[in-house]
Amino acid sequence: MKPVIAIHGGAGTLKRSRLKPELEAQFRSALAESLTAGYSVLNRGEPAQNGVVAAIQVMEESALFNAGVGSVFTHAETVEMDASIMSGADHCAGAVAGIAHIRSPIALAQVVMQESEHVFLIGSGAEEFAREQGFEVVQNSYFHTDWRRQQLLKVRDQGRVLLDHDSDKFGTVGAVARDMAGNLAAGTSTGGMTNKRYGRVGDSPLIGAGTYADNATCAVSATGHGEYFIRAVVAYDIAARMRYAGETLERAAHQVVMERLTQMGGEGGVVAVDAQGCISMPFNSEGMYRGCIDTQGDTRVRIFSAE
Amino acid sequence: MKPVIAIHGGAGTLKRSRLKPELEAQFRSALAESLTAGYSVLNRGEPAQNGVVAAIQVMEESALFNAGVGSVFTHAETVEMDASIMSGADHCAGAVAGIAHIRSPIALAQVVMQESEHVFLIGSGAEEFAREQGFEVVQNSYFHTDWRRQQLLKVRDQGRVLLDHDSDKFGTVGAVARDMAGNLAAGTSTGGMTNKRYGRVGDSPLIGAGTYADNATCAVSATGHGEYFIRAVVAYDIAARMRYAGETLERAAHQVVMERLTQMGGEGGVVAVDAQGCISMPFNSEGMYRGCIDTQGDTRVRIFSAE
Repeated sequence: MKPVIAIHGGAGTLKRSRLKPELEAQFRSALAESLTAGYSVLNRGEPAQNGVVAAIQVMEESALFNAGVGSVFTHAETVEMDASIMSGADHCAGAVAGIAHIRSPIALAQVVMQESEHVFLIGSGAEEFAREQGFEVVQNSYFHTDWRRQQLLKVRDQGRVLLDHDSDKFGTVGAVARDMAGNLAAGTSTGGMTNKRYGRVGDSPLIGAGTYADNATCAVSATGHGEYFIRAVVAYDIAARMRYAGETLERAAHQVVMERLTQMGGEGGVVAVDAQGCISMPFNSEGMYRGCIDTQGDTRVRIFSAE
Repeated sequence: MKPVIAIHGGAGTLKRSRLKPELEAQFRSALAESLTAGYSVLNRGEPAQNGVVAAIQVMEESALFNAGVGSVFTHAETVEMDASIMSGADHCAGAVAGIAHIRSPIALAQVVMQESEHVFLIGSGAEEFAREQGFEVVQNSYFHTDWRRQQLLKVRDQGRVLLDHDSDKFGTVGAVARDMAGNLAAGTSTGGMTNKRYGRVGDSPLIGAGTYADNATCAVSATGHGEYFIRAVVAYDIAARMRYAGETLERAAHQVVMERLTQMGGEGGVVAVDAQGCISMPFNSEGMYRGCIDTQGDTRVRIFSAE
């Protein structure tokens, strides 16, 4: 069976006129690199979860996206990251929140899934687990970028809390994949909201909200205004529509993102893949950094709505 | 419209022969007190969420349950608590995790829902928000009880991590209600697992997993082995079956708890109420502390399976 992968690098009010050609080219190149990394892992027969992690790690390491290096700053001028992963074959899952010193939050989420008896670990406890598992520990400054600090200073002065998506700089990253054995997986990684306080956690590390995978229905990774995605249980709702209402992936994803979320006022989108390798990437924002390699092996990389 | 309320005080391997008559009487009395507290709030016309909070606070203040006072100890001999609440009329929600110094975690979850722009706050950040909102701050020792410390020392020596439910002392508390206006709400509060490490968080604070409410379908609060409840998105799955497959509350709750969770090996149960005031309280464990006041005003308090 041919592998399939789809990724996102965040969604938001992205206008073509405001994205400089040079930066646009950088984004397209980074998305293509992420797809290639994930696909090559899948293409040598590794499980879907490994393809998801490989694709996400490219975006975590890129300063362009709000995950890993280049994550947005909290009110306290630090970076705090969340991530989750789920395997569709066995419904196993791993998630972390409030991570400040572990280089790859998505890799940590995978090891929580594989090596712990738990699903969700938070804060310093999650980092203690990471150290015991041999993870590389880095200074928080490892994740810092000047332009994200400027972004914080600007919004902190205004007393606002911003989704990365509210600016023309975008956000959360994620991937979904079907491997050569037909198994699905989904993963999501994020730095959250600029100027966030109070240990705010969005949908990204929450199984059912930001991430869900089930071989019988679909794998989903979400990006957008997390509070709405939590309240609408977005990722699982797409699977539930397929499972209980017999909807196709395309219709289920459309209904949840374009109808339900839009009615609630929740901006964002998802990438999703089903067991047949069908891909859906709906979003109700002006743009979503996204890309996929389908069952034909064809690669697409897109940013704006009209392309 | 007559108010309806249902509560749980945890589920597990509870054998009638192992529960001493005096302790059993204490549990039944505490459950009745919780029901009365929630119902009297509902009966004077207050919203469902207030009834849920009032019922849960009685169990948080009681040393009998694994929430608030009497919460289980972590590996580090401290108490860390999680809670969440959701309102079925507007799908608003609030949740907190890793709380160590706020007297009523469920009240904090409600204020996160009402007063913040966020859904989920964790750790010291959540407590900073609580202080700003005027919450009473207490020493962690406020929550400590000798018998929970003994329970920790016993299992820590054995190197085990215990759900409260694995012992004959039980756990997590929760409530669901329909108010006189016909609106639904659900809430859950817990101390988590004895000897837990690494900032482990279970399903209790996760919207969709441990708590969910939607006027069109149902309100659900779960208790049990949280990792399975997260992976199965238990609370929302019951609502999704009603919404998309047209199942009754009774059938949906039964299918999720007695079929799906049992197949996965996930022990526990739920309390749930629908818009018509129907109540369902299925569990696949030997017992579940539970009680309800139905549309007829009749009160039931139960512990074991066969009663």
